[in-house]
Amino acid sequence: MPSEPLVILGIDPGARVLGWGAVVWRGPRRISLASFGAIRVPPGLKGGERLIEIRRRIKEVFAVVKPDAVVIEEVFYGRNFQSALTIGEARGVCVLAASEEGLPLVSYSAAEIKSAVTGNGRAHKSQVAAMVARILGLACPPKPADASDALACALCHTNRLGG
Amino acid sequence: MPSEPLVILGIDPGARVLGWGAVVWRGPRRISLASFGAIRVPPGLKGGERLIEIRRRIKEVFAVVKPDAVVIEEVFYGRNFQSALTIGEARGVCVLAASEEGLPLVSYSAAEIKSAVTGNGRAHKSQVAAMVARILGLACPPKPADASDALACALCHTNRLGG
Repeated sequence: MPSEPLVILGIDPGARVLGWGAVVWRGPRRISLASFGAIRVPPGLKGGERLIEIRRRIKEVFAVVKPDAVVIEEVFYGRNFQSALTIGEARGVCVLAASEEGLPLVSYSAAEIKSAVTGNGRAHKSQVAAMVARILGLACPPKPADASDALACALCHTNRLGG
Repeated sequence: MPSEPLVILGIDPGARVLGWGAVVWRGPRRISLASFGAIRVPPGLKGGERLIEIRRRIKEVFAVVKPDAVVIEEVFYGRNFQSALTIGEARGVCVLAASEEGLPLVSYSAAEIKSAVTGNGRAHKSQVAAMVARILGLACPPKPADASDALACALCHTNRLGG
């Protein structure tokens, strides 16, 4: 059963650093790294300027990566209400940008992502990073950790496509 | 000291209902109601569709109200992390839309807004609504409460303009 290669882009949204990572899925167990990186918002940008920058940069990533689907982690926990609000703003900008471009958007919980990548829904961050490197055939986990987390999102989704 | 009338638009962002209210400031103690309302997101709209709808509707409000400044409450507390994230997404879309249109954006804490409108930073919601009605010369507080809260935001900012 031949399939079209699919580019899956994972996004790990944060208030000031947003990791992203794209993989190419060519069929079960035929997954390779496309590219990854992190969007860092300059500290001087506040409020709306911060969100405009995130919007601009994530649209650049869409333009370069040309994803067939965007995967973004559901965020269910965190330090406090205020940090959730700030992450929510950044996440909302990414969700909005993807929807405006007509890109299919999928969300998974942290436990689903960890379980898909390591087999353990409560795996430590370092275990997830190590498995991301192993699945993609990399000598070491991608840096920064935000990019590695984003690749874990993308890999979680490839599981649903048939591994 | 004559001043240009200024239209101040307050926004009270929620996950599914966003209140808005605009006042016209013509100088100290010369404040009148322009218009108010609430954006209700249809329950069927999820994820990116919800945010696209919020973006479309808040841009309609900008087009009708033609605000000189947009005031949005800082949100520092709430039921839980998940609700903060969802409110943050909606808030982010409003902040982004305002910034993209080049509208000056101001934020105040809930305590600042309550204090500006009632003289008491810990006033009850109903006291705030009653004072909004009184300041704007209305027979009763605007409904829904989200719109009344948004007008309180706008009135807080007129205080900074000179009452």
